Amino acid sequence: MALRRGPTPWKVSLWARRGEAVGPASRALPGCLVTNDLREALEGAGTVVLCTSPGAIEASGPLLADILPAETVVTDAGSVKVRIVAGLEKSLGGRFIGAHPMAGSEQSGISAARADLFDGAPCILTPTSASCPEALARTRQLWSEAGCRLHEISPAEHDRTVARLSHLPHAAAAALVHAATCAGSESAWLAGSGYRDSTRIAGGPESLWAEILMDNRDAILPAIADMQSALEDLKSAISAGRREDVEGFLATARRLRSPEMSSQQ
Amino acid sequence: MALRRGPTPWKVSLWARRGEAVGPASRALPGCLVTNDLREALEGAGTVVLCTSPGAIEASGPLLADILPAETVVTDAGSVKVRIVAGLEKSLGGRFIGAHPMAGSEQSGISAARADLFDGAPCILTPTSASCPEALARTRQLWSEAGCRLHEISPAEHDRTVARLSHLPHAAAAALVHAATCAGSESAWLAGSGYRDSTRIAGGPESLWAEILMDNRDAILPAIADMQSALEDLKSAISAGRREDVEGFLATARRLRSPEMSSQQ
Repeated sequence: MALRRGPTPWKVSLWARRGEAVGPASRALPGCLVTNDLREALEGAGTVVLCTSPGAIEASGPLLADILPAETVVTDAGSVKVRIVAGLEKSLGGRFIGAHPMAGSEQSGISAARADLFDGAPCILTPTSASCPEALARTRQLWSEAGCRLHEISPAEHDRTVARLSHLPHAAAAALVHAATCAGSESAWLAGSGYRDSTRIAGGPESLWAEILMDNRDAILPAIADMQSALEDLKSAISAGRREDVEGFLATARRLRSPEMSSQQ
Repeated sequence: MALRRGPTPWKVSLWARRGEAVGPASRALPGCLVTNDLREALEGAGTVVLCTSPGAIEASGPLLADILPAETVVTDAGSVKVRIVAGLEKSLGGRFIGAHPMAGSEQSGISAARADLFDGAPCILTPTSASCPEALARTRQLWSEAGCRLHEISPAEHDRTVARLSHLPHAAAAALVHAATCAGSESAWLAGSGYRDSTRIAGGPESLWAEILMDNRDAILPAIADMQSALEDLKSAISAGRREDVEGFLATARRLRSPEMSSQQ
């Protein structure tokens, strides 16, 4: 939908994994080919975007190498990059360029699709020394025309960064729901917008997120431990009656959250 | 602003603590008396609403008892209720009815005022056996006409409930900022809407929140400990490679967050 806007819309073909998704997806993408047949969807494609779960993206290399002509560029939208990039560079070589658009919500499926989803959202590209310059140029063009602001870092730096800024928030939201409701969830309707916003992402699909947390475990485990320590620091200050330390903890958090972020949507 | 809407607008007088706030508040509340003189603001008031920080509300009893005629009803908007209700019932008797409208944002000051802030928001009233029925009726009318949905529980139950659903989310958001940025905050611009929403309330004023966390410490300390344990459960499952337990943890959180909540704004 994002690539179909604008003066020169992209020609888009969509492969629907489930047959029953073909109808709704066709209606959401008028003028595009939507099919349950993978080879039909890939026929004549200049650039292929893999948008399944990280495990399925990682496993798709040999099949794609078999189907696609050598000049087809491949990119993805997976939340974890080290394993995906290593696996797909092995199967596809330098024409695979890893990407992670930092957009979306707790919703999934074609009914959650929005043409403006990527507008202004960061997209991390993770080219390596093996990347083909033309593939990188075409991948930059695709995510940029979809509306994203591009940023390029290594797959390892990506995984460390998103462990803190994307995967840890998900773990924290789920843990917050557990702790907030462990005395009974019947008063949850009393919660204000703070609780609702803080736990929104905990409404996301658990199978996808379990896969992400397992895939990026080396970076996530120390991030969770740091969150536990931060809570311990706060608990100790409250418990010991050190009000100035409690206020300092909150003031530092407010500052670190940085003003330019709070103005974004 | 909420009480000035509707067919029979309330007559509202506003006491501004700081002299420089009088001008902006007057412009936000046309037709209302806005003054820096407390006695002038209270003159002839049928109902008084205390909207300062919890500590200032708790300390205001003797002064109000001295100024106000015996029939004036008093309510408040403080986030902690046991200490406030005990203190103000001691000074003012059964004409004080504790209230906590669960609305607002991380912003403060008259510039953040909105007429629809309370529309559909829960407001917890905490009457006790000492409460005067007429005072309770008038307090119900006020918060209800402001737009709130009312709920009545004891001060102690209020403090236990909001420790989980309001104060813990604030502590968690601040701890998440610390853990997310402790490897450097320069990549914070890469964060998606998940991180932004999860940490939004960490942008709130630290002096108010430090006061709230200290005031409600008995209920908050076990809530923070429960959050640490929930994170420990998740960390152990990821670390041991128990993917089904990770998925179960996330699925339970999604369910406990309850569907009727996610549809609220």
